[in-house]
Amino acid sequence: MTSVLSKFGQQMSHLTGVRAIMKDIIETLQSEQSADFINLSAGNPVILPEVEQLWRECTADLLASSDYGEVVCRYGSSRGYEPLIDAIAADFNHRYGLNLTAKNILITPGSQSLYFLAANSLGGYTPDGALKQIVLPLSPDYTGYGGVSLYPEAVRAYRPTLEVNESAHRFKYRPDFSQLTITEQTGFVLFSRPCNPTGNVLTDNEVNRITSLAADVPVFIDSAYAPPFPALNFTEMSPVLTPNVVHCISLSKAGLPGERVGIAIGDVATIQVLESFQTNLCIHSSRYGQAIAARAIASGALAEIAKTVIRPHYQQKFAVIEATLDEAMPNVPWYLHQAEGSIFAWLWLQDLPTDDQAFYQALKRYGVIIVPGSPFFPGLRDDWAHKHQCFRISLTDTPERIAIAIRRLAKLTDEVYGQTTKAV
Amino acid sequence: MTSVLSKFGQQMSHLTGVRAIMKDIIETLQSEQSADFINLSAGNPVILPEVEQLWRECTADLLASSDYGEVVCRYGSSRGYEPLIDAIAADFNHRYGLNLTAKNILITPGSQSLYFLAANSLGGYTPDGALKQIVLPLSPDYTGYGGVSLYPEAVRAYRPTLEVNESAHRFKYRPDFSQLTITEQTGFVLFSRPCNPTGNVLTDNEVNRITSLAADVPVFIDSAYAPPFPALNFTEMSPVLTPNVVHCISLSKAGLPGERVGIAIGDVATIQVLESFQTNLCIHSSRYGQAIAARAIASGALAEIAKTVIRPHYQQKFAVIEATLDEAMPNVPWYLHQAEGSIFAWLWLQDLPTDDQAFYQALKRYGVIIVPGSPFFPGLRDDWAHKHQCFRISLTDTPERIAIAIRRLAKLTDEVYGQTTKAV
Repeated sequence: MTSVLSKFGQQMSHLTGVRAIMKDIIETLQSEQSADFINLSAGNPVILPEVEQLWRECTADLLASSDYGEVVCRYGSSRGYEPLIDAIAADFNHRYGLNLTAKNILITPGSQSLYFLAANSLGGYTPDGALKQIVLPLSPDYTGYGGVSLYPEAVRAYRPTLEVNESAHRFKYRPDFSQLTITEQTGFVLFSRPCNPTGNVLTDNEVNRITSLAADVPVFIDSAYAPPFPALNFTEMSPVLTPNVVHCISLSKAGLPGERVGIAIGDVATIQVLESFQTNLCIHSSRYGQAIAARAIASGALAEIAKTVIRPHYQQKFAVIEATLDEAMPNVPWYLHQAEGSIFAWLWLQDLPTDDQAFYQALKRYGVIIVPGSPFFPGLRDDWAHKHQCFRISLTDTPERIAIAIRRLAKLTDEVYGQTTKAV
Repeated sequence: MTSVLSKFGQQMSHLTGVRAIMKDIIETLQSEQSADFINLSAGNPVILPEVEQLWRECTADLLASSDYGEVVCRYGSSRGYEPLIDAIAADFNHRYGLNLTAKNILITPGSQSLYFLAANSLGGYTPDGALKQIVLPLSPDYTGYGGVSLYPEAVRAYRPTLEVNESAHRFKYRPDFSQLTITEQTGFVLFSRPCNPTGNVLTDNEVNRITSLAADVPVFIDSAYAPPFPALNFTEMSPVLTPNVVHCISLSKAGLPGERVGIAIGDVATIQVLESFQTNLCIHSSRYGQAIAARAIASGALAEIAKTVIRPHYQQKFAVIEATLDEAMPNVPWYLHQAEGSIFAWLWLQDLPTDDQAFYQALKRYGVIIVPGSPFFPGLRDDWAHKHQCFRISLTDTPERIAIAIRRLAKLTDEVYGQTTKAV
């Protein structure tokens, strides 16, 4: 049956951003030579034994309690499972000296759906036809932001400035405050901190400048990699929790991606808007994941394991990438983004003689899969060469295989730049 | 912070249908006299010990297996957890002689979100501005259908014909095929079978007439109460699974409301549209509920417990309502809808001298809460007195308390009709 789709149906039928690439990757991995590939494209976190064990223990505890039936066999409140909300409020109030109540907190089925709710209630068209923009102050950023608005034209990203250390082959993105515009036509501001995919952490000062510019506009800070859990920051950072910030947590990188637990912490009015939309959309989030998370957060175990197990695991992998690149890369203008957090490395090959898609295809012939960077600039409409010179490299394979893959990448880099030199 | 909301944000901030009433009910139950109320408003199913035990055993089995980490600690496919999809395909293929493959099946975070995906990809405005309607062929129907479309004007319901047995005080809704219009401007057709709230089951013949009229238009049949699970049908019925039908299952009434598991079975093209929208909206559904459901469906335990425990439980409660009404109701034109399925009874007080909202308020003063019927006619714009003469009565309290509540309702009915007679 081929139905005529609505405008939204046609648009949501497109796989946006990195998902189109993922289709090609899946097909590659399903091909005959799949066993030979080193796949550094994965966004799926590693199952760390200590983390799995924590969730198993919380589940056993839930099964042993009389709560089980109430959690699984009953509908719950749209806002979320009360003991989880209480555990979050208590943790954040104690840790950061806040006065959060249950009304400041909403649990969503993953943080992606939280951004969908925000994108379509705070962004998009007002009844009088004005377009409220979703402003991404620092591009590149999470590829999924490109797919959450029913009106893609609402997403507006800003090109960053680049801080480059040529001799060290490192670089860092900075927001370009001379360009960034936040007005009453801004529906909300959105960025990830630490940033997926770059690992950039906006400084407190940069975040405060953004929240000040935003004034009465909500600023959603995607904290999927931030402390206190999963604490995938490799540099010191604290959540910024000023009144116009909606702090968005995901438990996916804390070992629960299968359970889809997103958490929004913000002002009562904004939380109510999101909650009401959620009620109409899906009634409430699944409760088992919430119930085990409530236990792991209330006991402090999740924050502890994040610091002692999750963060070191990825930080060690990053060190391998860094060391191997430094050792193996040819003398071309390559730059690794400062490792400030996340489960990816972000590599920029300046003046790349080909583009990111072609380089990705060529590297597949070396048995290595990484992700071309161009899908990570949602909402940035500038014609900017840099968009086609970057790559996302996942930290989820073993150190040994990561090192092998990076050496192959270095070899290809040498070849690609060398060919151009010869051609000149 | 009070943001200016988008059109969709403003609309989704309204609690639609029965949820506005639910707010009043919750406030009533939180009041001082709450302990004295018999609450027959609940949509939350009873926790049946055998059902809870089934889910506990499936969970213990999952915990004992090496699957646990893959289920909870990893992202999964957007389509759903493969073993659940395989279990559904095998069950339906065997039970109904079909040839379903994984491509015919999508798992969503509850069936409400499934209707949201359908409403906004198949219904709403096409790029050239035409409105694709969501046709509800038989009103009243599930109140939540009123809240799933971002364009409420897209929802179009049809007034039924009534088959009334005056002496027995029973009635039944029938689709009015002289009115029902399905054209190429219809995005899709949607109805629940058995019907929430009325307990009506459209006959095979009626369903076949609708699917024939629909031809190339998808017909979503909300089977949240249908066999094989939860099998809350009190009359013989089989799912209709013709090519343009999308058969929609919920596991909420099979004891998993907390886990939000919706299942769509339909043609590959329609399933793909819904899956893609879901990917952009929330990546995938939570997997724990899917994993325990896979076990309970593959073993046959869920279908068995549905027939032997879930169905008889509610059928016995219905018998209590029926007997108590027959015994206690005054000689006024009251009609109970035929008990063909669901966890509610649906009562029509013809020529009610007041309206459903006022009657609901008055009954609260008798310590009984039922749900006024007017929110169950989403999309029906006709000015029809019947809409304000019906009540939904939940079968979730104990037989004793249900009987007490129905006697009080009978007393109020006598009073309300009596006052009018006196006034004449």
